[in-house]
Amino acid sequence: MTHPLAVAVAGLGTVGAGVLTVLRDNAELIAARAGRPIVVTAVGARDRGRDRGVPVSGLRWYDDPVALARASGAEVFVELIGGSDGPARAAVQAAIEAGKHVVTANKALIAVHGAELAHMAEERGVTLAFEAAVAGGIPVIKALREGLAANRVRRVAGILNGTCNYILTAMTEHGREFGDVLADAQRLGYAEADPSFDIDGVDAAHKLAILCALAFGRPVEFDAVHVDGIRGVSALDITFARELGYRIKLLGIASQSERGIEARVHPCMVPAAASLARVDGVFNAVVIEGDFVGQVVLQGRGAGAGPTASAVVADLIDIARGRATPVWGAASGSLAAVPSLPMTAHSGAYYLRLMVVDRPGVIADVTAILRDHRISLESMLQRGRAPGEAVPVVLTTHDTGEGAMRAALEQVAGLDAVLESPTLIRIEPA
Amino acid sequence: MTHPLAVAVAGLGTVGAGVLTVLRDNAELIAARAGRPIVVTAVGARDRGRDRGVPVSGLRWYDDPVALARASGAEVFVELIGGSDGPARAAVQAAIEAGKHVVTANKALIAVHGAELAHMAEERGVTLAFEAAVAGGIPVIKALREGLAANRVRRVAGILNGTCNYILTAMTEHGREFGDVLADAQRLGYAEADPSFDIDGVDAAHKLAILCALAFGRPVEFDAVHVDGIRGVSALDITFARELGYRIKLLGIASQSERGIEARVHPCMVPAAASLARVDGVFNAVVIEGDFVGQVVLQGRGAGAGPTASAVVADLIDIARGRATPVWGAASGSLAAVPSLPMTAHSGAYYLRLMVVDRPGVIADVTAILRDHRISLESMLQRGRAPGEAVPVVLTTHDTGEGAMRAALEQVAGLDAVLESPTLIRIEPA
Repeated sequence: MTHPLAVAVAGLGTVGAGVLTVLRDNAELIAARAGRPIVVTAVGARDRGRDRGVPVSGLRWYDDPVALARASGAEVFVELIGGSDGPARAAVQAAIEAGKHVVTANKALIAVHGAELAHMAEERGVTLAFEAAVAGGIPVIKALREGLAANRVRRVAGILNGTCNYILTAMTEHGREFGDVLADAQRLGYAEADPSFDIDGVDAAHKLAILCALAFGRPVEFDAVHVDGIRGVSALDITFARELGYRIKLLGIASQSERGIEARVHPCMVPAAASLARVDGVFNAVVIEGDFVGQVVLQGRGAGAGPTASAVVADLIDIARGRATPVWGAASGSLAAVPSLPMTAHSGAYYLRLMVVDRPGVIADVTAILRDHRISLESMLQRGRAPGEAVPVVLTTHDTGEGAMRAALEQVAGLDAVLESPTLIRIEPA
Repeated sequence: MTHPLAVAVAGLGTVGAGVLTVLRDNAELIAARAGRPIVVTAVGARDRGRDRGVPVSGLRWYDDPVALARASGAEVFVELIGGSDGPARAAVQAAIEAGKHVVTANKALIAVHGAELAHMAEERGVTLAFEAAVAGGIPVIKALREGLAANRVRRVAGILNGTCNYILTAMTEHGREFGDVLADAQRLGYAEADPSFDIDGVDAAHKLAILCALAFGRPVEFDAVHVDGIRGVSALDITFARELGYRIKLLGIASQSERGIEARVHPCMVPAAASLARVDGVFNAVVIEGDFVGQVVLQGRGAGAGPTASAVVADLIDIARGRATPVWGAASGSLAAVPSLPMTAHSGAYYLRLMVVDRPGVIADVTAILRDHRISLESMLQRGRAPGEAVPVVLTTHDTGEGAMRAALEQVAGLDAVLESPTLIRIEPA
């Protein structure tokens, strides 16, 4: 097993250049750990002329990623193009069909087409690895699929999008509004020019879909993830959260009960003392709860050239060593057919903020509606007095069904004295 | 690969019974993840009659662990006896000689004899796995050896002993003295009747020696670890730490520089905002710093039947799947011969607490000694006034060589006005 592992890399953006850099800078150490050298033999990207900070002139170049995936010479195809469809998907399919192992950092591809691709890889007897697709440099896929494999996992929860966490952290630290902080984040390069994939929760949902499949041993199902982003979080909610002993975080949460599997991405109120409440800025973190191990927390950089390349190369080392694991932790035949639960089946505590006209009787009307839906209040806060003007009213509930909460909210929103669309944020134990 | 993996388990204490329980309760799930059932076929312990909460009557029983290790029928020998020498070592050697894979939770054995045992295992082509030996249920060995294998690791630091962390946390939260809290911990079962292995830092040093070998790719060397325990930490130091913005934690720290490798276990002042400062009670945590991934933090339960069994069974699943990794991350021939540095080569910031007679000129005498050793002060605190009586004086330094610090300390301790042996606690960046 001392012949080098030959690798083709498609996509030479930040991460692709990072992978080439890691393989070059740590070549000797990687060869020792992999049992043989790992050598990039061919590459491809759209623009051949661009300076990427790493020399690619000695490598075979392919403009077409599908041609690169099919070309003989490499045992592994590394897909760093991105996107759930188009050239990334076509190239990965071509590589598997050609009998090559595939390593990808593409969360969208795996979340949307992972079940089908895993099936293809299993049939061809090749590896489909994607450590870099979730939480960047944190080896969370290895932890879930191998390190904690003795456990029945009950719940996985995480801060899976560094852009959202950066924005929420900055809003919390400086008391600023979402739009201002987003503009800053875009200027600093922490948010894309079109930030919707991040701030609308889609990126986190891709990652959660993958974690959910691994945690509970079933094929990935992106459409089963409920997704809300952070556009609706205001500085006022962040202030109230602090007052109530919480921090607001965008979490991805997957849990299993007798009824089925819940998977959801939305802003959460998390107790200030919880591990996830204290993960700030661009960092990611994942909490895994197993029946024997209890709670394990993993934290680190979820994006960037170095951390992502670290994960890609770890997958390459596994392949070089011949360490193989079924894509979803067990062979297709052993995967569980557990039903996915809709968000309306969720039950939990809620934070509800209303802007109401400050006049007698409004609170009575609101609380009567909640009572009629059998929603039990935990606390009520009203700040400021401005007779006849709008003031914020905050209510928190005990455990309530999402269905009842939504029905009540619709009625509350219809009250004359309720001025804006109410803000609803779910409260999570941790 | 569908024949069951047959396992022999030596030692049926808390962890041994835990392993049997995990393999029984999660048998189906483990078989799916391992690709085949994992079945315990033989066991051994000192007392056959004891009730362990799991049935062992159907299993072959061996009073002698070496006989169990040699007996035909099992492919894997699980050593849960404990102790660096005696029956544990003899049985592991016998199992390797008999061509069996070995899984152990025995940190003392691996720290002291791991280099020799790894060599034997490599010669026989068998696995020697010990995920459970460090940080219990946290998959830190897998993270270091596989998940972060693309990185040159610069530093590993961790809270590696739950008993010490429980004691320091209780001292911090309740302002109590070491002896009182230790007595409570013993009553609650968090500390042994003879607690010296834990509180003198030996247990943490065993674990650090293992992490150090994995992080830097060299054979394990327990004697190279500097060890101080927590007996000398007083409630007064914890109060001063808080005032200075620190928490006191017993850390194991291994780092590599051009000069060599430093490995040390001692009480540290850690900035209150650092990840490790916020890991409280019996939890363990490890921070790994890699050149590409940056800082990764792993946190979880470091002891107990469930977490430790979770790690043991993860190793068994790796063996069942045929996933193999050289014991120290690379084959013996590729391990680095990096020198170990003595503690006197250390350089860092220091906290120094003196009990001095409250009279004019004492501080001048102390600071003159520090100046003569070219030690630069960062801060000085004197609390309380009691002319002619003992008062505490706290000094913190900028980066200083350990050699200079020790020499200065000896002179300071010799001053008439200095009443007790000075307390020295190293300040760590994180």
